[in-house]
Amino acid sequence: MMTNPKNMQILLAHRPHGWVKESDFKIVETDRPEIKDGEFLVMNLWLSLDPYMRGRMNDAKSYAAKTELGAVMVGGTVGVVTESHNPKFQVGTIVLSNFGWQSYGISDGKGLRILPGKEGISLSAYLGALGMPGITAWIGLMSIGQPKSGETVVVSAASGAVGSVVGQLAKMKGCRVVGIAGGKTKCDYVVNELGFDACVDYKAGQLAENLAAAAPNGIDVYFENVGGEILDTVLTQLNAFARIPLCGFVSQYNVTQPYAIRNFGALLTNRAKLQGFIVSEHTDLWPQAMQELENLVSSGQLKYRETIAEGLQNAPAAFIGMLKGENLGKQLVKIV
Amino acid sequence: MMTNPKNMQILLAHRPHGWVKESDFKIVETDRPEIKDGEFLVMNLWLSLDPYMRGRMNDAKSYAAKTELGAVMVGGTVGVVTESHNPKFQVGTIVLSNFGWQSYGISDGKGLRILPGKEGISLSAYLGALGMPGITAWIGLMSIGQPKSGETVVVSAASGAVGSVVGQLAKMKGCRVVGIAGGKTKCDYVVNELGFDACVDYKAGQLAENLAAAAPNGIDVYFENVGGEILDTVLTQLNAFARIPLCGFVSQYNVTQPYAIRNFGALLTNRAKLQGFIVSEHTDLWPQAMQELENLVSSGQLKYRETIAEGLQNAPAAFIGMLKGENLGKQLVKIV
Repeated sequence: MMTNPKNMQILLAHRPHGWVKESDFKIVETDRPEIKDGEFLVMNLWLSLDPYMRGRMNDAKSYAAKTELGAVMVGGTVGVVTESHNPKFQVGTIVLSNFGWQSYGISDGKGLRILPGKEGISLSAYLGALGMPGITAWIGLMSIGQPKSGETVVVSAASGAVGSVVGQLAKMKGCRVVGIAGGKTKCDYVVNELGFDACVDYKAGQLAENLAAAAPNGIDVYFENVGGEILDTVLTQLNAFARIPLCGFVSQYNVTQPYAIRNFGALLTNRAKLQGFIVSEHTDLWPQAMQELENLVSSGQLKYRETIAEGLQNAPAAFIGMLKGENLGKQLVKIV
Repeated sequence: MMTNPKNMQILLAHRPHGWVKESDFKIVETDRPEIKDGEFLVMNLWLSLDPYMRGRMNDAKSYAAKTELGAVMVGGTVGVVTESHNPKFQVGTIVLSNFGWQSYGISDGKGLRILPGKEGISLSAYLGALGMPGITAWIGLMSIGQPKSGETVVVSAASGAVGSVVGQLAKMKGCRVVGIAGGKTKCDYVVNELGFDACVDYKAGQLAENLAAAAPNGIDVYFENVGGEILDTVLTQLNAFARIPLCGFVSQYNVTQPYAIRNFGALLTNRAKLQGFIVSEHTDLWPQAMQELENLVSSGQLKYRETIAEGLQNAPAAFIGMLKGENLGKQLVKIV
């Protein structure tokens, strides 16, 4: 296989204050790393772009180590082994890894997963519906949300990589499923293609009224991806014993002054349970989640869409677009 | 036993807007009710005053039915049977009930508990450390808070009927226990008499700094009784995997504009678990809680104090005083 002797890397150049700018990144070309005994070289084919990466750009205390200034941006990747001094990872092996925003990575195999190359499943799906976002949806919904047939499940960022899986899984559980998304295109996709019962366009105004109309029996499970005013509105429509998996607050990642929640008291009056979670801290549930998701994607029961940026150099713009909600479904970068 | 032929009752006269006023209540004297076959008459000796009663005065949706205008205020009582047409409840039997703010009650025995009259335990304790507040503390701390030895447990309204039990139970679990209370008298009581490791006086200013000094390793469990700015400050000092039993929001019960929570995002970054609960919905745990609390009070390991208002006619003023934090420990009304 022909490979470029140079490694393109995208570094964190500045910590953003408020909205991320393209100038917060720096694109460099370095020499491709040399492999030692037991190691192998991976050419990255796909890079996953995810909202959590915004948090790593900050200097604040959070659940994960921040990215240092001048370091390669973190991220999940799917790649192919192109050189190997490791018999378990032969040239041509397809691996799922976290090499970040760069065209090559070196590994001794620790923490990597060899992908099965299953018929009918694209490699990129292992960064979306079958990967971290899909598993996040499964774990948050099943282990914290615990939806029961007949209940109403609401999910924000409904057309995104996580939200779209949450809603479809809840539908299979026999729930009434209501998405919240920005714009008619996303709402139509969520209802017409993914089979949600309803979708509320938060950009259309009258969020509380529209949500009440879409969830007339109140909200039993709210899978939270966005935070801010949408969360505050949902709190006013909770049912008793509601469950709220807290997965992300994407509306708050680029603001300098966080939105203050007025309806916190509803958590008490409704005896609600709310839990923040990080998918990487629930690895005991990964095998079950992965197996179920793979079966559902293989059989066509679980649908997904991808928004693909071409070329690693376009990752910064695609990342900023994703944070602004310009993508539909999983945001990827096609590196090769 | 000599009994008054009249029944003093305290009715809800107006729904308060903001702070409760004495004029929101109306004191009436009615004829003492006549008992029928199977019924018995109870002369109430003690009335419990609790923050939850403020919620019942509102017209808003909450976890419990509101008190209707003109109806007797709800509340737990300890009384003695003075007339009986029910062989299971002989004259002289001491019962724990919910007759509310009045001097007499009639019952057929459903939902009442006959008190054992245990040596060394005052009857009023069954409205406090051994009653609903103590059981609330036990259930919230043990089943939601789940404190582990070496962890830091913070409790607000620390000198109150619930908070004082929470802190002592957490101490027995081997935790560092920090109270939050208003004023030096309460803080001294909590540390010197109840054995908390520290107590932060929220009225003294510099809450965040003082809390950080009192809980230098961060907060693992926060038992929430007050809400508002204290909650918002605690959120900034949570540890990963913190647990927050939401028991009450007494700082918010008399405000017309709820305090908006700025640091909600800390629940996600710390993967915190927060759960609102109502003690009456966890009756499966009552027998264990009651047994343990009784053993601890009997043996002197669990301490409590009472603030006693004399005479039912003084219940409104005592209730308002309790909402303002003027009491120390359990607020009671001695009816007879």
